[in-house]
Amino acid sequence: MDNLSVGIIRVFTTEDQEITNSHGNKIEETYNIRCINKCIHQQPKGIYDEESETKAIPKIIELAKEFENHHKVSCIAISCAADPGLELVRNEVSVPVVGAGSSAAHMAKTVSQKIGILTIANEVPQAMTRILGDSLISWRKPSAVNNTADLLKGYAIENSLATAKELMRDGAEVIVFACTGYVTIGFGDILKNKLGVTVIDPVETEGNALSFILRGE
Amino acid sequence: MDNLSVGIIRVFTTEDQEITNSHGNKIEETYNIRCINKCIHQQPKGIYDEESETKAIPKIIELAKEFENHHKVSCIAISCAADPGLELVRNEVSVPVVGAGSSAAHMAKTVSQKIGILTIANEVPQAMTRILGDSLISWRKPSAVNNTADLLKGYAIENSLATAKELMRDGAEVIVFACTGYVTIGFGDILKNKLGVTVIDPVETEGNALSFILRGE
Repeated sequence: MDNLSVGIIRVFTTEDQEITNSHGNKIEETYNIRCINKCIHQQPKGIYDEESETKAIPKIIELAKEFENHHKVSCIAISCAADPGLELVRNEVSVPVVGAGSSAAHMAKTVSQKIGILTIANEVPQAMTRILGDSLISWRKPSAVNNTADLLKGYAIENSLATAKELMRDGAEVIVFACTGYVTIGFGDILKNKLGVTVIDPVETEGNALSFILRGE
Repeated sequence: MDNLSVGIIRVFTTEDQEITNSHGNKIEETYNIRCINKCIHQQPKGIYDEESETKAIPKIIELAKEFENHHKVSCIAISCAADPGLELVRNEVSVPVVGAGSSAAHMAKTVSQKIGILTIANEVPQAMTRILGDSLISWRKPSAVNNTADLLKGYAIENSLATAKELMRDGAEVIVFACTGYVTIGFGDILKNKLGVTVIDPVETEGNALSFILRGE
């Protein structure tokens, strides 16, 4: 697996290389995969509505082609829980492409039929609900958490823990993050330690799928 | 992960410990998980029709309870591509339960939308088709291969390779085994080496899901 690398697409723009690399670093540590991390251009706020998604998709496709043609990666991940452009990217490149959202939803369904989603928005990505179907028994958003930046505020961990407890009261046996921001704040480990619940983290499942593909190369 | 073990349920009866352990051994080698392997009782022909499935399911549930209560396993796998009794077992034990068939179908969907199934029967397990939906673009059975025993015959590899090529001509980008018998004959490696196609092996995906769960324990 030593010579193989994967391309990690971040669907926003930042000049901060540490932020750009954060998902890839987690995947490298967990699965020993060499990751090349890149952001799409000129979209510092990322994807937050239909218009911003429409604007982002051609850039995601362009970046995927660059990963395949220039960096010669073995596979590509679109590292966002909403899987923006997944099907379109698959039509444009020949290497396997994984989306963080669908990888998380599929892993959740593989291990449980009683799934709760922790999100930051007033809706759950279709990329996840389509797959989860009847197994999605509840989804909730912590109070005063409305975007990724809110997850960095002092109260975010406490509020998110309270919401996770509610998901468990609703009957959820596993909790899926519908935003990779929960990964950034290390909320998966907190949740496992405090509540002992199975956590499905989209960056981890994305890495798991990439690792599965590479093992077969 | 050292003290954690998983229970592997084989849905047929054999006195041959090497055969009983074969799936668990593969999972141990690939994922470094301690597996306890057990067969259901008094069903040497396994599951081959509705009646034999109905007969097997209470035994699968009983074995799952034994794994949880006596062996104190951390999770359980029903190691058959048809996932017999999966939902019922989940209702009866408190540890996570994985089915080989659904784990393979979910991994296939995670990495591709153009999926071919290689089977040994005249149908594909519902446990797989339900998940694959429109992404299942073709399924085929090698000529003169009608049961697991046929896979051990001299011609089986050659016929199966010919059928895999047909699946690729149909447009399949990944090939999923709908029978764990293909795993037993090591056909995954042959297929990857000869045709360079991504192969989804239900024992490997089952092990991958178990490994994912244990990593969170």
